[in-house]
Amino acid sequence: MNKKGLAILMRARMRAAAADGSSFPASTNSKLALAAAPLPTAREGEAIRSHGDGDRLCKQQGNAAAASLPPQRDLDVVRDAMHSAISSNKTELLDTVLRDFSEGYFGLSRDHRRRLLLILAKGYDLNRNQARELMKQHLGLQLPAGDGGESDSPKDEAMLSAFYRIERNLRQALKPAYEVLFERLNTHPGGLRFLSTLRADILSILQDENIASLRALDTSLKEKLTTWLSPVALELYQITWDDPASLLEKIVAYEAVHPISNLLDLKRRLGVGRRCFGYIHPAIPGEPLIFIEVALLKNVAQTIQEVLWDDPPIPESEATCALFYSISSTQSGLAGINLGKFLIKRVITLVKRDMPHISTFATLSPIPGYMQWLLCKLASLSQASSGVSDSPFMESVLEPDEERALMNSSGETYAGKSGAEVMLSMLTSTNYDWASNAEMLSALKPPLMRLCARYLLQEKKRGKALDSVANFHLQNGAMIERINWMADRSEKGLRQSGGIMVNYVYRVEEIEENAQAYFRAGHIQASEDVSRYIKEHDVRGLKENDGAKPL
Amino acid sequence: MNKKGLAILMRARMRAAAADGSSFPASTNSKLALAAAPLPTAREGEAIRSHGDGDRLCKQQGNAAAASLPPQRDLDVVRDAMHSAISSNKTELLDTVLRDFSEGYFGLSRDHRRRLLLILAKGYDLNRNQARELMKQHLGLQLPAGDGGESDSPKDEAMLSAFYRIERNLRQALKPAYEVLFERLNTHPGGLRFLSTLRADILSILQDENIASLRALDTSLKEKLTTWLSPVALELYQITWDDPASLLEKIVAYEAVHPISNLLDLKRRLGVGRRCFGYIHPAIPGEPLIFIEVALLKNVAQTIQEVLWDDPPIPESEATCALFYSISSTQSGLAGINLGKFLIKRVITLVKRDMPHISTFATLSPIPGYMQWLLCKLASLSQASSGVSDSPFMESVLEPDEERALMNSSGETYAGKSGAEVMLSMLTSTNYDWASNAEMLSALKPPLMRLCARYLLQEKKRGKALDSVANFHLQNGAMIERINWMADRSEKGLRQSGGIMVNYVYRVEEIEENAQAYFRAGHIQASEDVSRYIKEHDVRGLKENDGAKPL
Repeated sequence: MNKKGLAILMRARMRAAAADGSSFPASTNSKLALAAAPLPTAREGEAIRSHGDGDRLCKQQGNAAAASLPPQRDLDVVRDAMHSAISSNKTELLDTVLRDFSEGYFGLSRDHRRRLLLILAKGYDLNRNQARELMKQHLGLQLPAGDGGESDSPKDEAMLSAFYRIERNLRQALKPAYEVLFERLNTHPGGLRFLSTLRADILSILQDENIASLRALDTSLKEKLTTWLSPVALELYQITWDDPASLLEKIVAYEAVHPISNLLDLKRRLGVGRRCFGYIHPAIPGEPLIFIEVALLKNVAQTIQEVLWDDPPIPESEATCALFYSISSTQSGLAGINLGKFLIKRVITLVKRDMPHISTFATLSPIPGYMQWLLCKLASLSQASSGVSDSPFMESVLEPDEERALMNSSGETYAGKSGAEVMLSMLTSTNYDWASNAEMLSALKPPLMRLCARYLLQEKKRGKALDSVANFHLQNGAMIERINWMADRSEKGLRQSGGIMVNYVYRVEEIEENAQAYFRAGHIQASEDVSRYIKEHDVRGLKENDGAKPL
Repeated sequence: MNKKGLAILMRARMRAAAADGSSFPASTNSKLALAAAPLPTAREGEAIRSHGDGDRLCKQQGNAAAASLPPQRDLDVVRDAMHSAISSNKTELLDTVLRDFSEGYFGLSRDHRRRLLLILAKGYDLNRNQARELMKQHLGLQLPAGDGGESDSPKDEAMLSAFYRIERNLRQALKPAYEVLFERLNTHPGGLRFLSTLRADILSILQDENIASLRALDTSLKEKLTTWLSPVALELYQITWDDPASLLEKIVAYEAVHPISNLLDLKRRLGVGRRCFGYIHPAIPGEPLIFIEVALLKNVAQTIQEVLWDDPPIPESEATCALFYSISSTQSGLAGINLGKFLIKRVITLVKRDMPHISTFATLSPIPGYMQWLLCKLASLSQASSGVSDSPFMESVLEPDEERALMNSSGETYAGKSGAEVMLSMLTSTNYDWASNAEMLSALKPPLMRLCARYLLQEKKRGKALDSVANFHLQNGAMIERINWMADRSEKGLRQSGGIMVNYVYRVEEIEENAQAYFRAGHIQASEDVSRYIKEHDVRGLKENDGAKPL
């Protein structure tokens, strides 16, 4: 594909993005998996197949032939190929069988893929009877009194010898047969990429149905992929305007945070004052698994507009800050495998080495879950105040002065409504009218900023930040530095986070400590500026409660 | 190192080879492991360390400092570093700890390495109590009656769910703690090479002492290395005279089959009509893990002299045969990991593609175990005939006419001795006198050739060919094509195999079938020419027995 073709692709993608309306930082694992999952639906299977992961493989396959076969026959053929791929010992034939299987798989309908994956998960599980036989043998032996030291009496040695033998066999017996398929595909040309597709399909099914055997299949595949995609196996690659269009089109297609709007936009992101780095695996050449976009700036940017549209960029020698403004994965099948963490660390090391004048490493990040969380809170409060719910634990979301300001700015439209109802109505108004209304903006800003700080710092799920992007950077060892008002005025920015964006900062010397504290106790490191939003609220809330308390 | 340095190294090596007197095809795992093992002995530790695997790492270490510390202190320090390398969760510190550990390890004496490896094997084994607890839980559950099909009743799902959970935990519990060390080293710069050194040491200890826990440690490390050194991770590299001397010196140092005698010899092996290919791993750059030397010839060579000394070589366009005349491993720590098999296959594919006029792929191989086996047989026969042993099962090793010819050629020196005794005396004569005595040669040739065929085709150990090189090529799918008289007149050739060499042939279309038949039933595929030696003997033996049978 030449760069003209790239321009055509970009127009097509822009249309698709407009229709879809959603994209998501890729290191998190929810929406992107849906958006880019290669599982074909009955209607759009062909379209997806000619763009998705299975592109090349699929082209080799006779689509016409596949279409002329009755579907059931198709599934049986692929099932047979899968069986041979697992059980055949003829390494000479293996390549053919693996190719038949992967090509056949791409020809299957969504439903048939689902059935095949279930057959794989259940029919090629471990031999449970054999494993239990070995467990009984193990439990039948008495543990030596060994002190774990250097003592090696002949008797201990003989006893240990029996343990080692059973344990070796038990490890083998606990290995499901489908791992053979994964391992064989990994060493087969194109196989690693196919495995990523396979996992994207598994994840897509698991979003609809919680099937234990399929979840076990996913756990096993994820573990294998994590090993095979260890950072040592990946090459850090700087993507530039000199790269082939076939690579650049991947950047356009998979940029998930700030869609690339035209060729000029792409060229700027690869030009002076900008960097783009990807991780490339030798088995998937010409296609970064994940890539990060970096702007070299004087200060940590507060809005995405100045990153994407400042013109001209400052001379690179004047930069003191490397701002990560986008990180995207190209493989939905690698969800949950944190390549981004290593990518960020390696990019920091590289930039520090090449440009010692750069001392600040920060992000300008979206807050993809903020509005969803807030609207949910406001809706339940509105219900409560209109008597539908009678929960005795009425949560105070708005400060009294915030509520007053909202009432005043709304005029007569919302007469008789509560502050929460007014806020909900404003935020859900068509075309984000509030964002172009100065009066509403000034009334909305204080509660939106304060609640955003609360959302980022205090809202958790299983001890981790509720927001997926926050969780990503915090587990990597970043801290929350600043939240920025009207930092992303795009439709997507307003919809996701009311236009607010956040700067996370990576302080090299604190990364490890932060990551550990977050991992162990869910501790979120934040600047004074951000923490103050919460503290002021807490103090004020405390005072008001004091006043209202019946003594 | 420049090429002058290389010449100096080669002289040094020639002296060492003369002193050592042994070298061995590397894909087999016995002698080379000893010859190149990096375990230092008390006396020669320093010398080995400045040449062996640990070269670079060792240079970083202050040898002087290590020497000034009391040994026990040294071991404790390295032990502490090892403990941190396994148990630390601070990924930031990990690189330092791993470096401390590997550098410290290289500074240890042989005995301290042994003690440290035992601590690792026993003190960082699996948590057996935890594993057994999980086994009890597993056995406490009733197996579902599942048919391995697509049935997924909610009840089955819930039951399976419990199994999957316990099995996942049990797999984890069965993982010895030392695997963490292996995995961390694998992703640490220089770590893969260090692991190979570690394993060379383990193997060296296991040759002297059979310690169960150390054997389990070896099994685990070998498994890991096999995964990390899978053929997809390795790059096929053609070594030429244009390569850096630092790489070429490795070829000189590790050529284990036909030592490289001088720079001219090396240059010829990399020049016209010759090829040298190596497998390189990205983590161990500039040093092939294994390499193979190939001669492009008109016919399958019968003697190594014509391969090493034919002058000038034929034009490459006239070649019809690619002869593999040497394959050597540089890493004794990779013993038992069959990289050679994949290397040979890839070289065949490459040569077939680049030179379609080449249709024969053969080896000219040593038979390293033949003389040892034969002398052993002859010695026990001699004992038997002189009345020391009274085994009733006297094996007939020599044919009557062979025995007569030997008696005639020996003259009066061996009057009153049996044929076996005469043969034994001749073969063990000083300076291999028999090889320069025409009469002895003609008397020895028939029994030596016939017994060589018998050794290669019929002598087995656990169902596999007794000869290690034969076993290597047969398991790779080659067949035994021809045995060649006086094919290697070097001291080593005469000592190992009475100067006989063997051609194995790789017929691409039969490789898989041969390998399978050998693997399953120990079946050895051989040409009519070679098989005839055995058959004629069998027929003759049968006739003589018939005649002697008391009717």
